[in-house]
Amino acid sequence: MRNIAILGSTGSIGTQTLDIVREHKEIKITALAAGSNIELLEKQIREFHPKIVCVYHENMAMKLREKVKDLTITIVSGMDGLISCATEGEAEMVVTAMVGMIGIRPTIEAIKAGKDIALANKETLVTAGHIIMPLVKEYNVALLPVDSEHSAIFQALQGEAHKSMKHILLTASGGPFRGRKLSELQNIRKEDALKHPNWSMGQKITIDSATMVNKGLEVMEARWLFDLEIDKIQVVVHPQSIIHSMVEYIDGSVIAQMGIPDMRLPIQYALFYPERIDLIGGKQLDFTTLKQITFEEPDMDTFFGLALAYEAGRNGGSMPTVYNAANEWAVARFLENKIGFLAIPTIIKEAMKNHKRIENPSLIDILNVENETYDFVKEYAESEFKYKP
Amino acid sequence: MRNIAILGSTGSIGTQTLDIVREHKEIKITALAAGSNIELLEKQIREFHPKIVCVYHENMAMKLREKVKDLTITIVSGMDGLISCATEGEAEMVVTAMVGMIGIRPTIEAIKAGKDIALANKETLVTAGHIIMPLVKEYNVALLPVDSEHSAIFQALQGEAHKSMKHILLTASGGPFRGRKLSELQNIRKEDALKHPNWSMGQKITIDSATMVNKGLEVMEARWLFDLEIDKIQVVVHPQSIIHSMVEYIDGSVIAQMGIPDMRLPIQYALFYPERIDLIGGKQLDFTTLKQITFEEPDMDTFFGLALAYEAGRNGGSMPTVYNAANEWAVARFLENKIGFLAIPTIIKEAMKNHKRIENPSLIDILNVENETYDFVKEYAESEFKYKP
Repeated sequence: MRNIAILGSTGSIGTQTLDIVREHKEIKITALAAGSNIELLEKQIREFHPKIVCVYHENMAMKLREKVKDLTITIVSGMDGLISCATEGEAEMVVTAMVGMIGIRPTIEAIKAGKDIALANKETLVTAGHIIMPLVKEYNVALLPVDSEHSAIFQALQGEAHKSMKHILLTASGGPFRGRKLSELQNIRKEDALKHPNWSMGQKITIDSATMVNKGLEVMEARWLFDLEIDKIQVVVHPQSIIHSMVEYIDGSVIAQMGIPDMRLPIQYALFYPERIDLIGGKQLDFTTLKQITFEEPDMDTFFGLALAYEAGRNGGSMPTVYNAANEWAVARFLENKIGFLAIPTIIKEAMKNHKRIENPSLIDILNVENETYDFVKEYAESEFKYKP
Repeated sequence: MRNIAILGSTGSIGTQTLDIVREHKEIKITALAAGSNIELLEKQIREFHPKIVCVYHENMAMKLREKVKDLTITIVSGMDGLISCATEGEAEMVVTAMVGMIGIRPTIEAIKAGKDIALANKETLVTAGHIIMPLVKEYNVALLPVDSEHSAIFQALQGEAHKSMKHILLTASGGPFRGRKLSELQNIRKEDALKHPNWSMGQKITIDSATMVNKGLEVMEARWLFDLEIDKIQVVVHPQSIIHSMVEYIDGSVIAQMGIPDMRLPIQYALFYPERIDLIGGKQLDFTTLKQITFEEPDMDTFFGLALAYEAGRNGGSMPTVYNAANEWAVARFLENKIGFLAIPTIIKEAMKNHKRIENPSLIDILNVENETYDFVKEYAESEFKYKP
């Protein structure tokens, strides 16, 4: 029996985690949390019987309380509610699958409560890796990556010593605009950017894939997860998304993890680690029908959001928070059709240029920097891109 | 300090093992053995100072004794001499790099003397896996594969449980005649068959690559090394020889080991296992210049020597010995220009057809079957291929 809490249960990772739980009666759901999708949350409650559920927005929490008043269940809301779900006594593992910096505090509190973390929230390590990683050590919990690339690296590292690692080769599909030049990205529409060639994911992460900012966030995340200098983490464009990432060792040996793109595989790997179990309904890689896989260098001039991630990562401190917050704000506006595609990396660049870096930011510093970044980029977009709120 | 003995020190694997030892003063050579190349052996003796050396042919051993009479060294000969080298007291590991079934007895004796084995002799497991593997367990020694494919599988298995394995995907370059049809292989000359696209190896193994019999032997060897049914070991043709082999797990995850073809990598991995160390002068895989890697199904109609290996492996018992002995004899005759290229798998096929399988052959049975096979194929080749001794 393994008890897990899922934060972000109505999103892409959350629902796929529940798909796996459905097939494994030995897993018990103790807590669920979501932003506002109470219709789906109600269904999940009736199927998985959690003890406590958080709806981030209190007005939606009230509506959910009404809907499930026939059940004995605690419905909470807000950041305190989220933290209650993250620290609920029976859970042994917390799946952090919410999008955005909202994930940091619940993750910290879950670690302090001794829970293992299945990490699907990028922002946590990108902005607060220097706070999280020492806590993971101090409280002796497992931090298991759920992202397919980081799971691949984690799998390729099994049985190997950290000192043997030479490079991490983080693969990238290159997104829907791979091969295009900067001038060709000027008039990209939201509909085009939402067409990812290999993975079906949430809207935010799909846009991040199109800009390759997603790969930039992954590079910064890998730096913390695998304790390697950022310049030893190299991006390899591999359009078929069959190799999910690789580790190159000091003897020249490269260990790669491969598979049909299916997020349930890394999710299940984290849930059952170190055991591997059958992936029900999973497809098998067939190399004879696959025929070939290809590799390219990333075009960092066109996808300069990726180059900026290396810059932010090298600078460290509060700079990755600026990178992330500026991107988060810009992607949301792009999805509202209020700014263009290339405005996204441009806004990140300007926000980083404007920021006075804090060496070792506290959690409060991080949250302040996030808000200051939002203020700056809003003003910048109003003046430069005629953005209107 | 690690003390090693090398059996087959003047061959391709032997000399490359010494290339590594040369760079690592912490390794001491305690014994060397070779067939007849006493010129090279003398150089090796003067550089690496072994205590005991075996020259298989006594007349050559006598000549070597004369050459090195200025040194305090024991020169032995024959099978007893080989076994003395394999069991010499100071060695902790024996590299078994001799070609042919001559390797079986020294390997058995080394295991019984508590030595770890770096296995580069294919015939040992192919013909006597059912004897060797229980001994490895009984004497609690490590059996480390040196072959690049088996080393790749072994590396891909690090940190994983045996029960998680679903398939082994053994990669094959396909050799110099990949893509050709049976009729096009009729008039192949020795010179063409000796041109391997990716690996520089001894003559016997290069011909075995051209017929894909080498891959067949590897399949049978993998069955013992990794304790998996032969039909769970699949051959994937991958002409670039970048992926050295893969393991597919029950969850659909595939772990691959990759690298620039360089035999020193798997040799060094076996010598220093479980530690990885810098490969001096080793080249780094560069995925952006690599551009693409391809996969094909093996053509078992054309390269029917490979299909016969699966048949021999499924039959088990003494059948793999027949497969191996028939091939060994036929390749030697092909290298003497006495039979044609397609006679090689045809002779294997007929020898297998003729053989009355022994279920659980003893070492004596195996050696008898080898000799009976030689007698049969000689007669068969004389009548069918007008072979003249």
